[in-house]
Formats: sequence, C-alpha cells, structure tokens
Amino acid sequence: MSADHAALNWWGWGDPAEPVELPAEGERLLRSELGLPDRPPASPPALEEVRIGEPALPGDALDALGEAVGTEHVLTDRLSRVRRTAGRSYPDLFRLRSGDASAAPDAVVMPGSDAQVAAVLEICGAERVAVVPFGGGTSVVGGIEPLRGELDAVIALDLARLDSLSTDPVSLTATIGAGLPGRTAEARLQARELTLGHFPQSFEFGSIGGYVATRSAGQASTGYGRIDKLVLGLRLISPAGELVVKPIPASAAGPSLRELVVGSEGVLGVITEATLAVRRLPRARRYEGWSFRSFAAGCDAFRALEHEQAAPDVARLSDEEETRMAMAMSSSDSLATRAGRAYLRARGHRNGCIVIVGWEGEQPAVAARAADGARILRAHGGLALGSRPGRAWLHSRYLGPYLRDVLLGMGILVETLETATTWSRLPNLHQGVTRALIDALAQSGSRPLVGCHVSHLYPAGASLYFTFMTRAEPGAELDQWRAAKEAASRAIVENGGTITHHHAVGRDHLAWMRDEVGDLGIELLRAAKERLDPGGIMNPGKLIP
Amino acid sequence: MSADHAALNWWGWGDPAEPVELPAEGERLLRSELGLPDRPPASPPALEEVRIGEPALPGDALDALGEAVGTEHVLTDRLSRVRRTAGRSYPDLFRLRSGDASAAPDAVVMPGSDAQVAAVLEICGAERVAVVPFGGGTSVVGGIEPLRGELDAVIALDLARLDSLSTDPVSLTATIGAGLPGRTAEARLQARELTLGHFPQSFEFGSIGGYVATRSAGQASTGYGRIDKLVLGLRLISPAGELVVKPIPASAAGPSLRELVVGSEGVLGVITEATLAVRRLPRARRYEGWSFRSFAAGCDAFRALEHEQAAPDVARLSDEEETRMAMAMSSSDSLATRAGRAYLRARGHRNGCIVIVGWEGEQPAVAARAADGARILRAHGGLALGSRPGRAWLHSRYLGPYLRDVLLGMGILVETLETATTWSRLPNLHQGVTRALIDALAQSGSRPLVGCHVSHLYPAGASLYFTFMTRAEPGAELDQWRAAKEAASRAIVENGGTITHHHAVGRDHLAWMRDEVGDLGIELLRAAKERLDPGGIMNPGKLIP
Repeated sequence: MSADHAALNWWGWGDPAEPVELPAEGERLLRSELGLPDRPPASPPALEEVRIGEPALPGDALDALGEAVGTEHVLTDRLSRVRRTAGRSYPDLFRLRSGDASAAPDAVVMPGSDAQVAAVLEICGAERVAVVPFGGGTSVVGGIEPLRGELDAVIALDLARLDSLSTDPVSLTATIGAGLPGRTAEARLQARELTLGHFPQSFEFGSIGGYVATRSAGQASTGYGRIDKLVLGLRLISPAGELVVKPIPASAAGPSLRELVVGSEGVLGVITEATLAVRRLPRARRYEGWSFRSFAAGCDAFRALEHEQAAPDVARLSDEEETRMAMAMSSSDSLATRAGRAYLRARGHRNGCIVIVGWEGEQPAVAARAADGARILRAHGGLALGSRPGRAWLHSRYLGPYLRDVLLGMGILVETLETATTWSRLPNLHQGVTRALIDALAQSGSRPLVGCHVSHLYPAGASLYFTFMTRAEPGAELDQWRAAKEAASRAIVENGGTITHHHAVGRDHLAWMRDEVGDLGIELLRAAKERLDPGGIMNPGKLIP
Repeated sequence: MSADHAALNWWGWGDPAEPVELPAEGERLLRSELGLPDRPPASPPALEEVRIGEPALPGDALDALGEAVGTEHVLTDRLSRVRRTAGRSYPDLFRLRSGDASAAPDAVVMPGSDAQVAAVLEICGAERVAVVPFGGGTSVVGGIEPLRGELDAVIALDLARLDSLSTDPVSLTATIGAGLPGRTAEARLQARELTLGHFPQSFEFGSIGGYVATRSAGQASTGYGRIDKLVLGLRLISPAGELVVKPIPASAAGPSLRELVVGSEGVLGVITEATLAVRRLPRARRYEGWSFRSFAAGCDAFRALEHEQAAPDVARLSDEEETRMAMAMSSSDSLATRAGRAYLRARGHRNGCIVIVGWEGEQPAVAARAADGARILRAHGGLALGSRPGRAWLHSRYLGPYLRDVLLGMGILVETLETATTWSRLPNLHQGVTRALIDALAQSGSRPLVGCHVSHLYPAGASLYFTFMTRAEPGAELDQWRAAKEAASRAIVENGGTITHHHAVGRDHLAWMRDEVGDLGIELLRAAKERLDPGGIMNPGKLIP
C-alpha cells in the first residue's frame, strides 16, 4: 500500500509532506549528551514480516457483523489490523517498530450509522467480543490497545464513516460525526468562516470522537477552551441503549451527564456525534516570542496574565532545559542563530526561558489584547523577541511526532507526559517531576534530558508538559520507560497534580486512577460502567482499574 | 423569637432592613389588570397556631444523634422545625402562610464537622431516617421538602456550623464550608480584597453548599461564571463513604466526578465543602440601562455581544411585558418618571424593552469593555439610557422576594421559572412558554401577567427567566399553580429548552427529568445513587424520578 497522508504510518506517525530532519547541532547535542550508540537500532521491518496472530473471531460473529455493516466494512487484512494495534506512546511505537503486532484486533469493523453501531454492540455482546472504539489511533496512553479482557475476541470499531458535519450559524454550534478527523472538520468549518479552534498535536489524525472521549486540549485551548468546554451535546450508543445529551448551553437539571460521557474513553459506549461550540474564523492573529530569565519569572507572568483577565489564546513557557533543547533542535527559530543568542546574552537572558504567546480574533481587539499582554509580560521581566519565533512555532507546531520517529530511529527513548495543578503547587510539581524523571532514567546508566513547558493557563493554575529523552538500552527499553513513568506519576500524585491534563487515562495511567479519584470515585465509575455496559465488552482494561 | 435578619422569615422571605412597598402605580396596575379582590386573604397565623405534627423520631435515634453532634445541636422545637419545612416556591409559601407545617421534619440536626456528618448518616441509615441537607432554605423547586420516602422519619441536616473559609491567594481559590451563607462568604472574601462574584437573588440567605448542590447561577454569572464553572474541588460525605474531588484546574482523568456531585441536590450525599475560584475584588464597576424597540432586537444585540467576545458581566434584557410591569412596580427607576417615558416615546421606544448591562474590573479595562459593548448595542438599535437605571437595578437586585411577600398578601399568585436554550431556538422558546402560561392561567378566569427576561448569556445561547402573576382563586391556588407549571414545562420541553437553568430540579421538576436526560440518563443517576446511598436515605423524592 502506498503512502497515505490521511492516516498514520503503521509503525509511527504519518508520512510528512516534507521530510523532517534533525538539525546538525541538535544531533550533535543528543549524541554527546545522551551518549548514543554508533549503530542505530534496526529499522521497522516490512509489513509482511510483522508478527500477528490469526484473526480469532468466530465465523458466525464475522457473518453477523458483515450483515450489520456490510461485508466490505469488516476488515481482517494484515494492514488494517496492524494499523489498529496500538496508539503512539513510546511502548506502542517500540513494539510496532520491533515488528510486534501480536496485540492486533481480530477484525476492524466500520459502522456507517448509529443504528449500525448499536447492531455491532449487540452482536459483540452476544458473541463475547470486546469492542475498542477507534478514531485516529493517536492515543499516547494505550487507550486503543485491543485488549480482550475476559472475552474471547476483540474488534476495533473504526468510526471513520461517521463523518457528518452540520452547523447552526446563529448559535455558533457544529454537530460533527465522531469519526471525522479534526483536520477535516476544521477545514469544513473554515470553508464556512467558522473554526473549532481545537489544535492538539494530533490535529492531523485525531478524530472529533477521540477528542471528546479523552478530554483533549489543543494548543490554543487557553483561549478557545478545552474540548470539554466546547461540547454542548452528544450521543452515546452503549450496550444498554442510547444516551442523548441535548445541546443546551447551561442547565441546573442535576448532575452533568455530558461530563460523565466526556472523557469516558470508550468504556461506557461509543460517542457517535457531538455538538460543539464554534467561533467565527478569526481574521487576525499575532504570535510572539518572549524571553524570561527564569521559569519562575515566566510562571509569575503567566499567572498575572490570567489574574488580570489578559490571557492570550496560546501560551507556552519552556523551562531552561527545554529552551536549551529547543534552540538546538529547531533550525527555523531565529533565536537559534548566533545573532539571536548574542542578543539574549547581552540582555542577561543567556540561559533563559522562551515563551510563545498567540492572540487571535479581529482587529483592533487583537492588537489591544496583545498590547495589554505585553505590558504584563514586560512588568514581570519579559523580553520581547518579536513575531519571528511566533511564526516559527506556528510553522512547526505539528512536527513533534514526526521528529520523534527520527529520534527513535537513532536509538533514543523519547516520551512526553503532562499534568496540571494550582499555581501555588506548580513550582514543586515542576521540580518534583523533573527530579523524579532524571533520577529514574539515570539509573539505567545514561544521563537523560528532561524539559518541560507550561502549555495551558487557567485562572487557578496551569498544565505542565514534560518531554524526556535518554539512550534506549537494547533489551531494556520498556523497563526504562516504565521506571520513568512510575517515578513521574508518583511525583505528580505527591505534588497535587492530576495524573493527566489532556492525554487521558487509557492503560498507562490506570494504576494512578485510585490516587486521582479515590476508592469511592472508582466505585462511581464502575457503577456507571455496569449500568451501561453490563457485559463488560466496551474497551476493557482502560480507565477503570 | 425576635426578627433575625440572618435567617428567612418562617412564612416568607427575610425581614428587610427597610420595609418594601409596592408603588401606588404598580398596585393600581395589578388591581385593575388582575381584578384583585377587595378583601385580601388572611395574613399568616401566629407561629403557635401553625399545624405541625409531633416529632416522630424514635427516642433511640434522638439519643444517638445527640451523642453524635451534641444534644444542643439537635433541635425539635416548633420554630426550628417550621423553618425547615419548606423552601420558597409559591406552593411552599402558600402552605406556610396558610399555617400548614404538617410536612415539618422530625428534628433539625446541626453537625459541626465532616466526621459528625458521617456519624449522622450512619445513624440515620441504621434507624431508617431520611436526611434532607439544609443550607439557606431558599429552594424554589421543593428541593428541601422533608419527604420521608419509604422511611420512618426525616431530619433536616442543617449545615450552618460548617462555616470555615480559607483562601489560596496565589491560585485565587477559596475553600469554603457548605453551610456558610453566600453573603457571609462574600463579606469575608471582600475583607481579603477577593470576590466569588456569585450573586443569586437568594444571596442574602442561600449557602455555598446550596449553590453547589443546585448548580446555581448568580446575576453576574455571565461574567464570573456559574457556580459549576467556579468549583474546582469538593468533599461529599455519602452513606457509602467520602468522595474527595481534588482542586485541580483541569484534568483528562476520565469522566468528571466533580460534575456528578455538582447539582446532585443532596440525593447522593452531603457536600460539606468546596474549593472555588475567586477573583480579585474589582475596583471599578459600571452599570448602564439601554432600551431596544423589541425583544428580538435586544436578543440579536446580546448574541452579538457574545459572538464578538464582548459580553458584559451582568446582562439582562426584559421583554415588552416585563418592561411595562417593571416600570409600573419600581419607584426608584428613572425611566418610570414622566420625563423618562417621554424620552423613550420621542425616540420611538414607547413599548420597548429595557436592558441592564454591568461591567466590573479595573480601569481602563472596564471603560474599554463598556465602550466596545456600547458600540455593539448601538449597532443593533440600542438606545443608551445612562447609568441611572443601572444603579437603580443594583440597588433593588435582591428585593424581588420581599416584594413577592407583599403581592401574596394582596391575593396574587406570583411565581418564576427559568430555562435556557441555543440562540436559534430562543425566539420560539420565549413565545411558546409565554403563550402556554397565559393560556393555562386564563383558564382560571383572570387575565394573567407574564413577563420574561434574558438573564445569562453564553456563546451558544441564553437563559430565559419568566415571572407570572394572576389573581389567586381561593381554594384553587395550588391547582392554578400546577396548571401553569405543567403548561410551561411542556412548552419548554417542546421548544428544546432545559427544564431548569439555575433553580434545580428538586420536587417540582421531577416529572420532566425523563424528558431532560432520557431513560438511560435516569438509569445512570440511579446507578450513582444506589452506589453512594444504598439505603436510600438521602433527600428522597428529589431529582431522580
């Protein structure tokens, strides 16, 4: 099969329109600081060499599924199954690149309507087949791993055919099918002069249903709001029936069932469509770079932006280490030039922290907001770097996962994780997680690189997004990853952070859900699960311990 | 017992600091249009004449409760019980003014800590006693009616002793005991230069726990956000144990349990404290009156404010009928003067609609926002009326319930109800509910007055707040009320509104919960209830049909 720019590569991220290259200085820095091996690990094998089991779905079930959705929408070929084997966490990528697709689903089923979803769930309940709802396949927490639980087989329920989109231009809402990729939804909205304003790093592949099921946050969510703030109504098809949350802007009619479905990660049923708040497509945008002498100073500035009701739509503050790494790894950023560095040095920002802020909307409001923001940033020691770093960031905002494929090819273990807490706890959380990652990874013998940025602002606090890299030790890669993950998660819990700010729980955060919501919280989730999915067919092994 | 300005009158609203009088023109208008009887109904009887049963709590239970919270915190005297008999809906007030407190709880129990709340729930579970959490007693939907369900007795669990307040000035959050009245909480916050910004009409009496349990919205919630947007964390003591939601600004760790507890109206357990986002106390505020030629034009202007990100903090638009009523009933409003009316007439706004908009914050931001808002209001046909109507509204913002007591004394049935929907459905919802109320009330023979205002704005829609009045027909008052309520609720459901935007469900909206959330939604609420309150002692007969 030839390259398909609309879908993920089976062993990594997508096929980029332009090849992604690591700048020479970045490669030098990684090689020296991580002590990389001269010989990189083996490249991913050919698809034909990937290890995968025989489809285990009973013939009766296959026939029934074919009858429900059309036989052409039940796929059991190798590529279709491998593509729904794993998400895009480091362990997922490591296994795929090693040629291991033994976890592949027994079949891929693509329903074309709510009724077909319901029919598939009924068949799977009767035949004891687990169902993993599948959107873009971009989960980085094992959310779409086709676990069978205690059942006999498992299908990936690919929602790509649920791709409708309609708008209410008076109320500024859009009702969107769960399977529509964010990128396609955004393009169709922009053709109507509207925008969802939701730009997660998985934007090119992630689906609307995936966003809603995982409480996604996009890069501009400080301004546009996380997906859970944008969802007004939705439809969930569960084994026990259909739950419709009406699209109403606000209600006092009891607990929010919308908020029970949002973030349910496929364990309660299948979100088939959502009605979301959209905005008029902004005609003006202004993205700027700033520098702060320290992460602490930058955090104070960001907090002031929030508390003076002056937050930008995009707000990112890299800590000292991430700034250093970013300068080495990005070729397009003007700050990475010799002149740029001299400028920063001359102003006492030699080992400082880079900030990106973005403002979107209409003029003159954008200019006024940016001026107000600049006043606050400056008052907290910020040094304006102009629009070039902002443009560079916009240009490269989706490149991270492509670059990760390159790094994995060099023998680097690279992973990200994220959390959020209140402003008063943020410094300790930042230090605690950084130290935990460094200590855990150093035990494998190589010094790791650990960087972090503030990625989303709220009145009461902010999120922290960590990236860590170390030399992958052949044969011990997953142990290294696990040690880092466990250490970071413990530090998050100890410092009052949430175990995940926007990556969701899936399989990888399961062990910390009890710390997150307590025993009774788990019981409540179980109660909802048992009522909607009494047979336990929906995405077993995820979210609820 | 002497007048107590901190608590509700047992038969009505509180004792106002200054007596509330109906202006002569307002009285004339009501007498002529509603055809009021010359002889008003009887005044409320003396407390001693109120009908109330003997406390039915078994002696063992009383002893155990006294041991749990201290005997001085278990009240069985007449006044204490009568005061917790009913909320403040029209049926509640009608029954109380008729001297009927037969629904009174068997005792009032006032725990002083989380542990005491847990101990009380344990005793009540063992003794088969229903528990009604009680804050300020201001429910207008029967939310605190002491129903026994299938149990033997019922207590009001008065949370007044849970009155702690602490703040995190860095994160701008406050952790507040559930029993603290909103007014007291606000005063204590303002002493620290902070504000919750939550000003429901029940502000003087309603409690923080009550706000959270009912998804309260305040008059300034367009700007500050509804209570469900302000809650970060909370603590729920249920019969099955304690549920703690950590105060984290945003999370992707599964469904929001916070949103399951917010709005749970005491049926899942007792909310004992909440951590809420607060703001710095604004030093500037600007409130203005505007006039629009029609409700439709005003709605378009409000929608434009939202869609151009220029919404004020307070936004109210009265329809033509409410504007006419308000002009007659308010003495302080400058528009009610002869000159004010002439001004409106001269500009073609004779039967127009009054708008109040309020902006709060710091200068120059408040002036800039108000100017931006004025530009949009003017572009949609708004006529600026200056700050005097704004000041008048601020001065009288909490007077409605006091005035209602006066109207009830004149033999008027007066009630309010509220809903919300998307902008595109708002016109039909407004007309549908208005017509339903007029038709239903006209059947009792007297022409009713039905007014409405837009009370809260959202990007996707707005809330509508209806007030209706008619001549109470002796002996048929509750039938009149029920006919109006049922007709309005049907119209709300038919026109895509929520059955309640901020009054909550309680007993009065129970019959429409199935329309609101569907069969499976009800099942989900039941599943949560059964897990947290297996004995069914928590606030029976409310929220979940």
